[in-house]
Amino acid sequence: MNKRLLDRTCDAIQAVPNDLLSAAQHKIDNKTKPQGALGQLESLAIQMCLIQKNLSPRIDNKALIVFAADHGVTEEGVSAFPPEVTAQMVLNFLGGSAAINVLCRHNDIKIHIVDMGVNAELEPHPELIDKKIRRGTRNFALDQAMTREEAIQALEAGISCFFDAHAQTPMQILGLGEMGIGNTTCASAMISAATGIDPEEATGRGTGVDDTGFRKKVDVIRKALDFHKPDAQDGLDILCKVGGFEVAGIAGAALAAASEGVAVVLDGIISTAAGLVAYLIRPEISGYLISGHRSVEIGQAAALAQMNLEPVVDLNLRLGEGTGAALTIDIVSAACRIMREMASFEEAGVSDS
Amino acid sequence: MNKRLLDRTCDAIQAVPNDLLSAAQHKIDNKTKPQGALGQLESLAIQMCLIQKNLSPRIDNKALIVFAADHGVTEEGVSAFPPEVTAQMVLNFLGGSAAINVLCRHNDIKIHIVDMGVNAELEPHPELIDKKIRRGTRNFALDQAMTREEAIQALEAGISCFFDAHAQTPMQILGLGEMGIGNTTCASAMISAATGIDPEEATGRGTGVDDTGFRKKVDVIRKALDFHKPDAQDGLDILCKVGGFEVAGIAGAALAAASEGVAVVLDGIISTAAGLVAYLIRPEISGYLISGHRSVEIGQAAALAQMNLEPVVDLNLRLGEGTGAALTIDIVSAACRIMREMASFEEAGVSDS
Repeated sequence: MNKRLLDRTCDAIQAVPNDLLSAAQHKIDNKTKPQGALGQLESLAIQMCLIQKNLSPRIDNKALIVFAADHGVTEEGVSAFPPEVTAQMVLNFLGGSAAINVLCRHNDIKIHIVDMGVNAELEPHPELIDKKIRRGTRNFALDQAMTREEAIQALEAGISCFFDAHAQTPMQILGLGEMGIGNTTCASAMISAATGIDPEEATGRGTGVDDTGFRKKVDVIRKALDFHKPDAQDGLDILCKVGGFEVAGIAGAALAAASEGVAVVLDGIISTAAGLVAYLIRPEISGYLISGHRSVEIGQAAALAQMNLEPVVDLNLRLGEGTGAALTIDIVSAACRIMREMASFEEAGVSDS
Repeated sequence: MNKRLLDRTCDAIQAVPNDLLSAAQHKIDNKTKPQGALGQLESLAIQMCLIQKNLSPRIDNKALIVFAADHGVTEEGVSAFPPEVTAQMVLNFLGGSAAINVLCRHNDIKIHIVDMGVNAELEPHPELIDKKIRRGTRNFALDQAMTREEAIQALEAGISCFFDAHAQTPMQILGLGEMGIGNTTCASAMISAATGIDPEEATGRGTGVDDTGFRKKVDVIRKALDFHKPDAQDGLDILCKVGGFEVAGIAGAALAAASEGVAVVLDGIISTAAGLVAYLIRPEISGYLISGHRSVEIGQAAALAQMNLEPVVDLNLRLGEGTGAALTIDIVSAACRIMREMASFEEAGVSDS
């Protein structure tokens, strides 16, 4: 029997090789600057050398996929915005006027919009990729968010989205963003499940709930985890029980990108929770991952710590959509140019310390 | 009698008006995102509205000036690199292969290189602006770094550099960087003098001195401040006694840019110390200033606090040259586009919270 797309994709992921590490470190250390003076630009440059197996890494084409879906758990009153905003924001993305559109235009990043499970019948649109699994997840306060089959289907939809975009224009870096009212509740639950931190330490204000809403979020997450008891080691189990379709889309796209040697830039807490699912499914993905930005949402830190990632941008963002990833893609691109274009002490005739 | 260029420039600086503040805040609050969700991009967008007196701010042309000069205080053995590196790095800038060249190319920023007082006879070069005051400052451990007349001359050289660049291509934003072996010692001394913090709290490792070198730096600064007793309120006095020619160039260019309503992006500790000199000379400059990045050099924080500035980028950079400013200029540019191109809730038909 043929293996499923998910299994084939996971099998194709090879851990980023370390062979070039000392050569890359040597190359950056010999650029005309004090050792380490370019800080995180240096570590990004080295990571890109390893990913591309090349001491002159380059980013010619950049893409970002925004996955959108709704969440049954919004029935519990966990969000400051009404659920219909998910569909409205998808139309805003298609109109080119959301924050992520502006930042992608600014940084010359091709954007792709995917309906993974929006709770509305969206009109067909040439720029809308229809991968709807169903109209929103089930309310995980009462039931599993999705079945195991739906979860695999959603992961594979994410995989296909990456492969289609990559076939259109082969890319060297992929940003991953999302839209889904209720999805910080879902992400906090997933991170609490995977890392073992208390729901209260994994939960933030999302789009802006008040104290009552915040306590409700924590309470809903605590009860759901007590009830579903997701297996902390099993990304797919966590996804089924308290996940979201857009989260699955991101995890699938991340796996697919890694299988093709493409760097993956995560965004805020939801995108990071999705990265963690992908990491639990296939730990070899870690060397391909870059954390785009430090979210205001406190739960993100535990997920990043588990994957040993350090965010690039820290601008107090808490929007999602991929906005932090879009800014960071440009910084990674600059880091690659530093590695390619900057002179060594010898080339420039500059005395070393 | 005609007023001097410095006085005329200072007189022309008007504090950034606040008239548009509530309209700008209202405009950004009504974009399709939770209030405040774009963090520092929002405050930058608002600042640019106020500077440009326009709710649709734009950055079409960007420039960055790198001022280079030598420092007599290197005789005290305060740097990890030999002083001839200043001249060698100027040639590297002219060759287009230093970090700042790469980042300016990446972000489409026009770069200008200025010799303010390099201790070498540099060959004429079409891209080198010659404003040499003298071949390096005097060793401030023994004498004033420069005379009052030299300081004014250096400030005016910086002013002219801005006006010439702005006449060539009118810009909306200016980054300010520097090169000068020994200049973290100078910057730490200036910041200690202006803010009153102890030299030990103002001093870092620069390009990488060891423990002995670090103690020597602190000691040299402490003795110099005890001896010269610069007036904490008087930017010009601080500049003469423990400053540098490239610092004066930056301060002058910042004053000139503000006088023309152009936003100014400071870089690391030296550029920030220079911004502080400009601020002491003419406090009305503050609304035009943006702190490009959080330096690894600890003294920078006190200078930023005095000007009430919050750095945009925090990537553990400690190179100078304007590298942090070059990265931030692009983020400010993105913030302007957010203000111009992003839809409001009403325009996009999205429900508010």
